[in-house]
Amino acid sequence: MRINDIGERALIERFIQKLGESKGENLEDDCAFIPMGNQYLLLTSDMISKKTHMPSEISAQQIGWFIVAINLSDLAAKGGKPMGLLLSLGLPSDTSLEFVEGIAEGASECASCFNTSILGGDTKEDLELTLTGTAIGKVRKIDLMARRGAKPGDLVGVTGEIGKGGAGLFALKANLPNKLELAHPLFEPMPRIKEGIALARSGTVSASMDLSDGLACSLYQLERINGYGFEIEMEKIPVSIEVKEVINQLGKKEQTSLKKEFLLYSGGDYELLLTIKPQAIDQAVKSIESLGSKLTLIGKVTKEKKIILIEEGKRSLIQNRGYEHFRPKK
Amino acid sequence: MRINDIGERALIERFIQKLGESKGENLEDDCAFIPMGNQYLLLTSDMISKKTHMPSEISAQQIGWFIVAINLSDLAAKGGKPMGLLLSLGLPSDTSLEFVEGIAEGASECASCFNTSILGGDTKEDLELTLTGTAIGKVRKIDLMARRGAKPGDLVGVTGEIGKGGAGLFALKANLPNKLELAHPLFEPMPRIKEGIALARSGTVSASMDLSDGLACSLYQLERINGYGFEIEMEKIPVSIEVKEVINQLGKKEQTSLKKEFLLYSGGDYELLLTIKPQAIDQAVKSIESLGSKLTLIGKVTKEKKIILIEEGKRSLIQNRGYEHFRPKK
Repeated sequence: MRINDIGERALIERFIQKLGESKGENLEDDCAFIPMGNQYLLLTSDMISKKTHMPSEISAQQIGWFIVAINLSDLAAKGGKPMGLLLSLGLPSDTSLEFVEGIAEGASECASCFNTSILGGDTKEDLELTLTGTAIGKVRKIDLMARRGAKPGDLVGVTGEIGKGGAGLFALKANLPNKLELAHPLFEPMPRIKEGIALARSGTVSASMDLSDGLACSLYQLERINGYGFEIEMEKIPVSIEVKEVINQLGKKEQTSLKKEFLLYSGGDYELLLTIKPQAIDQAVKSIESLGSKLTLIGKVTKEKKIILIEEGKRSLIQNRGYEHFRPKK
Repeated sequence: MRINDIGERALIERFIQKLGESKGENLEDDCAFIPMGNQYLLLTSDMISKKTHMPSEISAQQIGWFIVAINLSDLAAKGGKPMGLLLSLGLPSDTSLEFVEGIAEGASECASCFNTSILGGDTKEDLELTLTGTAIGKVRKIDLMARRGAKPGDLVGVTGEIGKGGAGLFALKANLPNKLELAHPLFEPMPRIKEGIALARSGTVSASMDLSDGLACSLYQLERINGYGFEIEMEKIPVSIEVKEVINQLGKKEQTSLKKEFLLYSGGDYELLLTIKPQAIDQAVKSIESLGSKLTLIGKVTKEKKIILIEEGKRSLIQNRGYEHFRPKK
């Protein structure tokens, strides 16, 4: 069997299963947890490559920023404080030195923006530009926000606004006049480090992950791990300015279907998706607002293991799809 | 300027310089050191790709073993105890599922052989098979063996036997009849974890790194960091059985030059290169012998900043070369 027959998420599951079945809870999460006294060390690694992650418009500095940001986002989702990063580059031999230095600059800039730094780097020859970042962080054991823990009746919240990634990618593909501006949050995402730390300390969160795979995909991952379903209210999802701008440049008919595509089925948003204990909602919202950030409630956890969208009073099933590498051919 | 004009080590230096000049000591070493109480966390990451690291004879299981082993070797060189690993795969979309599972098996096997485990994994699409491993470990601050610390008069030692990597690669290229047997240590290196821990605890070591880049290259790296030179005695270098076997299949003339090539200028040995305080030699040797392993003294650190080979009473300069990606064209 070839891997393009089974799709990326199924492949990762098979791979992780083979890596050793014993550590179920760790392997299902954004980070590995390593117990150390009253803390967990959090360890995460993300790989990106030219073909799948870097549209031609992205600059070297933005590539450096991106690889650091997406690793930090995995820490953020667990409530982790960053302790440092490593960065490995696989480079075609005709890469220019300026390009490599640009990556280093962007990576350092992102790290320092989130009060951390790159502790080591390495370069190797590769046919395709490939970057791997590793982030290490820490969180008190009692503060850790795992993917597992959601209960029926918990409310579903997201930080910031949604759809930036999908709208940005659409703008690039459609070659919209202000495409670079629209793609800016896609190329230079802001991981929710301080929001993650504040929410973790507030003790109000029952489950957490980032939205890098898109809202629909992420909800299906939480459903599988927790064994419960979700009801999401379309009108409550906070819509990013980029979505509005792209939509405004389209016809009425396209608008509705694309908006849903951006909000539910596109990746590239590095917001946090959280389930929150109902009695602690005010406290959770306050912990975020005091940082000048926003937490929006968009639905709830349900006993019934279905993922439902409520839109203009009508209920429909959210599909289990989003961006996936090695996608099975239709 | 293209990176194939400057060579890999110069490129890594430029890259690391750009990543942030502030952390000199960390960035020159095999691992990043993160202080935590009376310990350092050690963090290291290594990337390999099909073209540069995987001859066609290597199996999926061996690729998995290799990526784990070379990361553990970086911990070993610092005296670190492994706490876990992450493994990211970049895969061409026509890769078979069996191949991916083979990598996972080999990786888990190597990790468990050194009393650790793979804590997380990820797969992405890539044009070329690319693997990144990350290892985390710990060492008491007072035990850490850094690259910096060698003093004139210290003796130079190596664990195990040298030349396995070079001889194995030669056997593959020359298509020798027993090439798979000869390449076994190249494909499945044994990181010197328990030797590194024992030497670190013995307090006898002034500087340490692994020999993955070859003896000559490694000595030049220690020279640059420490500001001192070395005298190495050719006859004292412990020659691996693979070197002897390959040499025996060659003519007299080739024998001498190739032996030197394997012992000095080839990479792929994951032994430790150490400098040891002269008054503590017996203790260092004992700490290793009690594990059933071997420490061989092959020379000394000198005030004069030259790297000299002594062979049959004659002195010559060891060249600063070894295997290097992006090698400048001659």
